[in-house]
Amino acid sequence: MSLYSQYFYCETVNQMFGEEQTLSEMLRFEAELANAQAEAGFMPKEAAELINDCCLVQYIDINKLKSEINLGGNAAIPLVKQLTKIVKNRSVEASKYVHLGATSQDVIDTATMLQLKNYLIWLQEQMQIIMQLLVDLTNIHRNTPMVGRTLLQQAKPITFGLKTAHWLHSLLNHYLQITHCQDKLCVQLGGAVGSGNLYINNTIRYQIAKALGLKNCPPWHTNRAVLSEIASTLALCNQSLAKIAKDISLLMQTEIGEVCESAAIGKGGSSTMPHKRNPVACTAILANATRMPQLIATMFATMPQENERSAGLWHAEWEVLSQIIVLHAGTVSKAIELLSGLEVNQKQMLYNLEQTKGLIYAENVVFSLSKSLGKIPAQELVEKACKLAILQEKHLKDILLEQHLILPDSELLFDASASVGYSTSIIDEILSEYEVILKR
Amino acid sequence: MSLYSQYFYCETVNQMFGEEQTLSEMLRFEAELANAQAEAGFMPKEAAELINDCCLVQYIDINKLKSEINLGGNAAIPLVKQLTKIVKNRSVEASKYVHLGATSQDVIDTATMLQLKNYLIWLQEQMQIIMQLLVDLTNIHRNTPMVGRTLLQQAKPITFGLKTAHWLHSLLNHYLQITHCQDKLCVQLGGAVGSGNLYINNTIRYQIAKALGLKNCPPWHTNRAVLSEIASTLALCNQSLAKIAKDISLLMQTEIGEVCESAAIGKGGSSTMPHKRNPVACTAILANATRMPQLIATMFATMPQENERSAGLWHAEWEVLSQIIVLHAGTVSKAIELLSGLEVNQKQMLYNLEQTKGLIYAENVVFSLSKSLGKIPAQELVEKACKLAILQEKHLKDILLEQHLILPDSELLFDASASVGYSTSIIDEILSEYEVILKR
Amino acid sequence: MSLYSQYFYCETVNQMFGEEQTLSEMLRFEAELANAQAEAGFMPKEAAELINDCCLVQYIDINKLKSEINLGGNAAIPLVKQLTKIVKNRSVEASKYVHLGATSQDVIDTATMLQLKNYLIWLQEQMQIIMQLLVDLTNIHRNTPMVGRTLLQQAKPITFGLKTAHWLHSLLNHYLQITHCQDKLCVQLGGAVGSGNLYINNTIRYQIAKALGLKNCPPWHTNRAVLSEIASTLALCNQSLAKIAKDISLLMQTEIGEVCESAAIGKGGSSTMPHKRNPVACTAILANATRMPQLIATMFATMPQENERSAGLWHAEWEVLSQIIVLHAGTVSKAIELLSGLEVNQKQMLYNLEQTKGLIYAENVVFSLSKSLGKIPAQELVEKACKLAILQEKHLKDILLEQHLILPDSELLFDASASVGYSTSIIDEILSEYEVILKR
Amino acid sequence: MSLYSQYFYCETVNQMFGEEQTLSEMLRFEAELANAQAEAGFMPKEAAELINDCCLVQYIDINKLKSEINLGGNAAIPLVKQLTKIVKNRSVEASKYVHLGATSQDVIDTATMLQLKNYLIWLQEQMQIIMQLLVDLTNIHRNTPMVGRTLLQQAKPITFGLKTAHWLHSLLNHYLQITHCQDKLCVQLGGAVGSGNLYINNTIRYQIAKALGLKNCPPWHTNRAVLSEIASTLALCNQSLAKIAKDISLLMQTEIGEVCESAAIGKGGSSTMPHKRNPVACTAILANATRMPQLIATMFATMPQENERSAGLWHAEWEVLSQIIVLHAGTVSKAIELLSGLEVNQKQMLYNLEQTKGLIYAENVVFSLSKSLGKIPAQELVEKACKLAILQEKHLKDILLEQHLILPDSELLFDASASVGYSTSIIDEILSEYEVILKR
Repeated sequence: MSLYSQYFYCETVNQMFGEEQTLSEMLRFEAELANAQAEAGFMPKEAAELINDCCLVQYIDINKLKSEINLGGNAAIPLVKQLTKIVKNRSVEASKYVHLGATSQDVIDTATMLQLKNYLIWLQEQMQIIMQLLVDLTNIHRNTPMVGRTLLQQAKPITFGLKTAHWLHSLLNHYLQITHCQDKLCVQLGGAVGSGNLYINNTIRYQIAKALGLKNCPPWHTNRAVLSEIASTLALCNQSLAKIAKDISLLMQTEIGEVCESAAIGKGGSSTMPHKRNPVACTAILANATRMPQLIATMFATMPQENERSAGLWHAEWEVLSQIIVLHAGTVSKAIELLSGLEVNQKQMLYNLEQTKGLIYAENVVFSLSKSLGKIPAQELVEKACKLAILQEKHLKDILLEQHLILPDSELLFDASASVGYSTSIIDEILSEYEVILKR
Repeated sequence: MSLYSQYFYCETVNQMFGEEQTLSEMLRFEAELANAQAEAGFMPKEAAELINDCCLVQYIDINKLKSEINLGGNAAIPLVKQLTKIVKNRSVEASKYVHLGATSQDVIDTATMLQLKNYLIWLQEQMQIIMQLLVDLTNIHRNTPMVGRTLLQQAKPITFGLKTAHWLHSLLNHYLQITHCQDKLCVQLGGAVGSGNLYINNTIRYQIAKALGLKNCPPWHTNRAVLSEIASTLALCNQSLAKIAKDISLLMQTEIGEVCESAAIGKGGSSTMPHKRNPVACTAILANATRMPQLIATMFATMPQENERSAGLWHAEWEVLSQIIVLHAGTVSKAIELLSGLEVNQKQMLYNLEQTKGLIYAENVVFSLSKSLGKIPAQELVEKACKLAILQEKHLKDILLEQHLILPDSELLFDASASVGYSTSIIDEILSEYEVILKR
Repeated sequence: MSLYSQYFYCETVNQMFGEEQTLSEMLRFEAELANAQAEAGFMPKEAAELINDCCLVQYIDINKLKSEINLGGNAAIPLVKQLTKIVKNRSVEASKYVHLGATSQDVIDTATMLQLKNYLIWLQEQMQIIMQLLVDLTNIHRNTPMVGRTLLQQAKPITFGLKTAHWLHSLLNHYLQITHCQDKLCVQLGGAVGSGNLYINNTIRYQIAKALGLKNCPPWHTNRAVLSEIASTLALCNQSLAKIAKDISLLMQTEIGEVCESAAIGKGGSSTMPHKRNPVACTAILANATRMPQLIATMFATMPQENERSAGLWHAEWEVLSQIIVLHAGTVSKAIELLSGLEVNQKQMLYNLEQTKGLIYAENVVFSLSKSLGKIPAQELVEKACKLAILQEKHLKDILLEQHLILPDSELLFDASASVGYSTSIIDEILSEYEVILKR
Repeated sequence: MSLYSQYFYCETVNQMFGEEQTLSEMLRFEAELANAQAEAGFMPKEAAELINDCCLVQYIDINKLKSEINLGGNAAIPLVKQLTKIVKNRSVEASKYVHLGATSQDVIDTATMLQLKNYLIWLQEQMQIIMQLLVDLTNIHRNTPMVGRTLLQQAKPITFGLKTAHWLHSLLNHYLQITHCQDKLCVQLGGAVGSGNLYINNTIRYQIAKALGLKNCPPWHTNRAVLSEIASTLALCNQSLAKIAKDISLLMQTEIGEVCESAAIGKGGSSTMPHKRNPVACTAILANATRMPQLIATMFATMPQENERSAGLWHAEWEVLSQIIVLHAGTVSKAIELLSGLEVNQKQMLYNLEQTKGLIYAENVVFSLSKSLGKIPAQELVEKACKLAILQEKHLKDILLEQHLILPDSELLFDASASVGYSTSIIDEILSEYEVILKR
């Protein structure tokens, strides 16, 4: 299943969510639990120190652990068992205090939060890179005319910078949300049924949260919204990045040819067609975007968990949340690859603007004629002229001239750069918003 | 398909998203567009006034409109056509200015935002009702002991108030998020390709946003995250409400019988079993929660929209977003019904606490014995004692006594109220958070 | 929600699954239940006859029924209540025998099967129409050369008939499966807990199945696979039809322009761009295809139903199954509209074959050179030549000639019709399969 | 991500779909392609033999291959590159013929089919084991009375054998479908655009299909229904197995206690509650069933693939199809574990039958009284009696006696074994069907 570990994913993040890293974060929880409980006088300081010394993933026999998961149904039970044994080998006394009063879910959920924390830090940096790439593209192509397309049909001119600004705009919001996610990461500590117990009280919870850099919060063993919420935030970002890939893959079509993924050596080749330049980065992103929505659905489906802790729904979260993150990371790294080497073919953009022989300027003509004729008659007249132009394979301007219509500023009416509306003003609006957000 | 319009849904909200209301909001956009354009000097004030007068849904032939949607692929095209005709019947001059420079998506997306606005207002009130019901239940049952259950097994005592407080806690966050959603509702105005045009500029956009009480924002024709984000917020709330229904349906089981939906006359009966009291409100909520996650997936799947406006993905949003809302509204209203009449059987809770003959106090005993024996030996000893108790069908306390174990405070060890941990302290933590949020 | 009832859907099928028709089918079950029970001597023949006379939907107060669903949680309870009253008004004696021993789910599930039966009959006819349209297109365009595209890039020539034959091929399998679905439609009759009772035995079940033209089968109150299976069959068909719409929408792009949806008057127009011809039928189909997969997921999610009858999962099926069917019907009717008026622009196909200046014939050249050079060197050589051709904007043939390469049959190497491989042989293979299937 | 590789999954099947096995099957395709082409005279026999000798996964540098996937976007391109080099090291001449005329998708899709083939063989055996376990349980508990439950409420008696027979019944159909899947596995061979070419014709395709034991079939590069269909078949089976796990997890609840997962040493324990016996096998199955529906949705979502080969949708299939299979395999192996050690507590079943103090016999009483009173009055009378019984905490029989009602056969009316309806007759019906299917 890992044949495509470098194509759909990003190795750095794969490792963050690999089994070693997961167990490391679980052990970090156990260490801080001991520290807090020693602080509160529930165990000798020395015991806590020893437990801390033992909380190293290299001491763990991972294969043994994996086979024992079958018996208890989660990774915490065999991990605690091994940890206790390791501690016991050095001090029987200290081994009494391992995992004191905590429940499996306390360890596992908190470790998940710590992994999320690592991911969000990585992610924020990558998002800044992507946004900067888009800012650069927008500045360069602020006035580069191209045709705008709706329902896959040529519609009216825009500038390529407007397109990249719209891409940027979607990411600004995701960046903000990702930043806010940091504040939602919270410790899990409730004991068996979320009520605390002798060794698990609000002070212990507060201390662990502080030590791990997480929010303190009442136990949430079966209140799972926070995870689905964070997952949704990532998925929204993923789908907006896929919108960029969708656009680029469409603009890369042979017949359109306006942009192109960078041509790394050997990249995008076909096993049988040496001339091709396939949109391989777009393809990976679009594949990820096809999978992501359903993974989110699964997260939401796991939410109505039974009673104080669930039989099955909690367990369904584990791998699905990881998959959401590693797919998202793959999309993000592929997006950087895609945008950093993007080739823009302005000449082809100009060529395509002429393909309809003036039809894309029809709205201009309608507006111009509306002043004298009214909108509806103007629209009907232009609609007929368009049909005639298509039928006779003539330029719309020529058809209109043949009909002796008086078109003021007819040159401007059929000029791409003069027809991009308020493209640059919208670009400025978005770039200002970017400046404000990045300076926060 | 509407046979169950009152069971899974809420009539009030069904109407908010019915065809009349949808067209009304679209007409409101057209009216405000005219106002803003008149203000900007793009049309005579009189024309704008006349257009406003004509923007009434009762003037629209809805059946005709529906059949014409087949031709153009959306509701705006035939609506604008009818509106123009209505205006033209009163003034040919004014009819020139209808829908000036706007695109179908401008009307439809803005109308959607206006419907969402109405819904969020309704929703906030209902959420306050639900939270108040939970606060009341929590206060009443703060100290009502019951058994906590994990993986569908009896685990340890909690109080019923702790359970309802956890329910409340999940909703606090949703309430906050729903409140924030109000600020995300934004106008759509970009013209054909999202670049604006002669009659569609930033001023016009600003004016319309202001008039409609929406946020001003650059065009987002193919940046759809905001809708998926709002939909996710509603869905998260829906699934947390379903967690409540899940718990109640489990607690209502004949063999558990700790709580019960209110017994309205004729409610919950079976066509063949006169004695039954079915969890009919829970059932509706759980059904809705089974459907909701996949609807969210569809919203996310629609996000990578092509170019300046999409062929199919935008269209897939329309009904799905409505379904999410009307299902959510159904869940919300059923939750009120469910919680306002909830019967709590404290006697049965006490009875169930005794069903395991002391086994649920095993952790207490482990903690108590750990002090002298260490945690692992204590745990092993108690595990054996538990098995013996099950085998011999005796009370755990008696088994332990037979083994001549010295259990300090053995009465307290087997007392439910003394075994609820920090239930009340967690309740207070959640209730304070509630106070803070409600006072904002 | 019904604004788009004619766009995404098909009115004929909307009605088949409307509330009146649903209740009618439920009443049909009640009538046949009475008949079978009279036959078995469980009630007087006269009582059964009277019940049959009363089983007419026009006697039912639907609004009352809908509001009472809230109490019992399904449509059967209030329907049986009303029916009993109607019968009682004519004979107190006969009213004792209404719905004798049956459970709500028996009525509702059987009525669903009857609705499915109606749908499958309609569907088979429509599928035959679509397949015939594709056979005709395939025959006409058997030898029409066009470029084949992979990963949205021009790859190598095919014939348009090969494309339509591949479309046909996918539908052949769906047609077969739809035909098999008829044999899976089965009666539901088990009484309260699926064990039968005094009045519900295997003979009664057999008789009702026979009378309703359904398969006899043990009760399946919580064995729901049959519905998910039928739903999947429809969804698979839906997605294959969407593949056709996807292709057509791509081929309709302004820059490609090889096919076009029929231009009904007013169809495909834009509210602001009079020249456009939007792919409105494709758009509806693609929208439906975006929604369908998640509806199937919901069906599968409802399957692990609790005990003898479920609280929520069964209920989640009702509307979702209907939605799957009515969306599918919409797709099917739009596909007929799409294919019956499809315009094919052979001239543009030829034009597009020349757009890469010979690059799409690279594989031909590789094959030709492989004989002398070996495949890898040939591939590398051609890859370089392609890059040069792109760089120098020359035809690949000219680049190769400049390199003094000896290309035997160089005319054929760059001829579209000579490069379509075994297109016609594959077409014949598929058409024969069609003949075999249709003659069954 | 693989921490839970033994809990949710089955190691045997994990390996079947691991990277080595995937590459092995791809190499098998390359070998048979060479054989068929040598047979057809397209290459010397010696070349084909050499290629066959080189098609061993141990010759492949998998890490190199994985990193090169990034460039070409699939595993076939770097595999063919490595294979060609390996062959070339032994014969430059032979290396010309590697992968002759085939496209990446031909290799990858065919390899997938071969993996599916292996899986279906494994699966059929496991399904036979599960069905036999259910047959045994059904025979043993044919007459074991227990209460049937609907909407989580006690309803009426059934036998436990009826429940297990219903479980068996669902699997019979899945077993048949899985058997049919074997016939759907087909070769993929179409060359770059699915039209064949010089070296890829119908004879070559027929030969490879024959050699690999797959169906011969026209190219299906963008006709993906067959994979979604097989995936659906597995998912349906998965969800039916989850229905069994759902039932067992509910019956295992402390307060119900009618069945129990086997108590392997250390199994089902909790880290803090030594007395618990958690439903760990059920939990894994239910977790898998929560994930499966959405994976199927993704398969369906990938179906409308563009043109002759897709950019992204095909790629989205790869890992998702594998995940469906390995999750399914996990469910299947957990189901065997679950059913082979299932403990059935008949005593507790009898105890639970008495919990409602006769209320579950209400239908019996209604039927009995209906004869004299008519169904509706009987139902109303019994409904009142039930309420009184609940209110006064008396047995329904006593309430009825107090009301001086004449109940013929009152002993039988309140006897569980006499109230199981046609349970045994339905059991026989299902067991006969099993016999017929297994003997095919």
